[in-house]
Amino acid sequence: MSQPLNVAVVGATGSVGEALVGLLDERDFPLHRLHLLASAESAGQRMGFAESSLRVGDVDSFDFSSVGLAFFAAAAEVSRAHAERARAAGCSVIDLSGALEPSVAPPVMVSVNAERLASQAAPFLLSSPCAVAAELCEVLAPLLATLDCRQLNLTACLSVSSLGREGVKELARQTAELLNARPLEPRLFDRQIAFNLLAQVGAVDGEGHSAIERRIFAEVQALLGERIGPLNVTCIQAPVFFGDSLSVTLQCAEPVDLAAVTRVLDATKGIEWVGEGDYPTVVGDALGQDETYVGRVRAGQADPCQVNLWIVSDNVRKGAALNAVLLGELLIKHYL
Amino acid sequence: MSQPLNVAVVGATGSVGEALVGLLDERDFPLHRLHLLASAESAGQRMGFAESSLRVGDVDSFDFSSVGLAFFAAAAEVSRAHAERARAAGCSVIDLSGALEPSVAPPVMVSVNAERLASQAAPFLLSSPCAVAAELCEVLAPLLATLDCRQLNLTACLSVSSLGREGVKELARQTAELLNARPLEPRLFDRQIAFNLLAQVGAVDGEGHSAIERRIFAEVQALLGERIGPLNVTCIQAPVFFGDSLSVTLQCAEPVDLAAVTRVLDATKGIEWVGEGDYPTVVGDALGQDETYVGRVRAGQADPCQVNLWIVSDNVRKGAALNAVLLGELLIKHYL
Repeated sequence: MSQPLNVAVVGATGSVGEALVGLLDERDFPLHRLHLLASAESAGQRMGFAESSLRVGDVDSFDFSSVGLAFFAAAAEVSRAHAERARAAGCSVIDLSGALEPSVAPPVMVSVNAERLASQAAPFLLSSPCAVAAELCEVLAPLLATLDCRQLNLTACLSVSSLGREGVKELARQTAELLNARPLEPRLFDRQIAFNLLAQVGAVDGEGHSAIERRIFAEVQALLGERIGPLNVTCIQAPVFFGDSLSVTLQCAEPVDLAAVTRVLDATKGIEWVGEGDYPTVVGDALGQDETYVGRVRAGQADPCQVNLWIVSDNVRKGAALNAVLLGELLIKHYL
Repeated sequence: MSQPLNVAVVGATGSVGEALVGLLDERDFPLHRLHLLASAESAGQRMGFAESSLRVGDVDSFDFSSVGLAFFAAAAEVSRAHAERARAAGCSVIDLSGALEPSVAPPVMVSVNAERLASQAAPFLLSSPCAVAAELCEVLAPLLATLDCRQLNLTACLSVSSLGREGVKELARQTAELLNARPLEPRLFDRQIAFNLLAQVGAVDGEGHSAIERRIFAEVQALLGERIGPLNVTCIQAPVFFGDSLSVTLQCAEPVDLAAVTRVLDATKGIEWVGEGDYPTVVGDALGQDETYVGRVRAGQADPCQVNLWIVSDNVRKGAALNAVLLGELLIKHYL
């Protein structure tokens, strides 16, 4: 890195974008000038950064040749419309939306597959994985050095913040209506989410899988390669405001040494293992933190080759924003 | 059956006991006289049954030789103290508490293993399985005729009503406190349950499994025998008032014919299959119903030998009370 770059955050006014801008500030991200961008309806707002107040610009008319690195934290259609345009203008892109195929924008996590960067040259076009894939791979990557995993089963309980601020508002609104015994007319979700669990997050395709399940599957495969065997993913929607909770079963080739598993988890930066009669939850542990929490490490009841894990993480700050920022820091340090 | 029996319900004032008494009434259960029983602190209350009001008696001093059939729907310690005493007095016992080992009181469900009754003679000592085991086995039993299942993975999301009325009250209280921005002091649960997911239900043993996970494991093994291969169970506590939601993966020996699976589900009494772009939830479908609902029937994303199911049911009415009442009806019709 010769001198600090200009950096853009697309989708700065959304919940992930806001968390990302906050982390750039908090971590003293090495940048010269920051451009906050959003679609036309949000442009014109002002947001704080460091000691200053910045005006949010319109991404449609933004000239990406003026920045060296752009984070795309808006909806998938915004990335589809502008990510390749930005790269063509010489700007490296870290896309958080999942809009681009792994073959076009390979998913990269600093703690999992940073070596993948060597196969591209600036300007980069990379994906930062969705929160669930990131949380899962962060925990699995160090474990796969000691476990011969043949199969992985995941039930991920997503909070309503996975749908952005509107999801949070709708859970609060429905809960208040119900506690006040007023009739409920669901919005955003197709039915009552308060005090209920929805079997799927969004619509499903012809084979019964939702878009987020497809994305998790593709990103975990891209991040870990063939090292985990067939992956089976179920995503459900929980009446929780923030944080992902994952129930994970690894099927291994041999009986699992649980003490070795907890030793690895305990020694890995970015992971917090909770044992000794306690367990982590999103509300009590993960929210606002930079760690992914792991608990309930135990063998299968009938099969010592199985190991179960409970993984919780702040989906907005840690799962989405922080991983993208860490990737940006690595790019700037060694590649831009 | 020569003439209607006298029947007792132990734990009549609890949520499952109350649902059970309601079903006896609703279904015109063939009985001569009904005795409602509870522990000393609840005895003396009055409860409605049919057109009359009955006084709840004290189980400690009750003479079980005056009844031919007793449902035990109280805490495990009540069953441990009185179930064998009742049977010794000539009373057949259906225990819902899970207090008794399968070898002492075999779990029986009418739709799954009614043939098990032939190995006992009156007075019977039987278990009616916990709600999760019952819901799972009801769905699996007809499927195992067409599927060669080698392994089963379950993440069960339990509602707070699995802890009885106190669980329901505590979730309501915590939610109201939080929505009113008052400081939260958790009771009953060891931490915040409102807008949170707890990794386990109650304490865990030295191997990391909770009592309810052990119970589900033992009862499913007893109900289905070796037909499903190793079973792996995770129970989490969800901020939902009523109803169980199960995320289930079956690993089969051969690629699964999904159309055959949904045909079987659709044709089985007591099961409601929800497909065609919809899915069932506890609030919208299961509560107050006598059916177990199944949706999201789909293959694994990478393995056609896997089939995923989402199962929801009213844990109090259907999962616990109705199965016990059905078993009582069968006993009276053919065995008592």
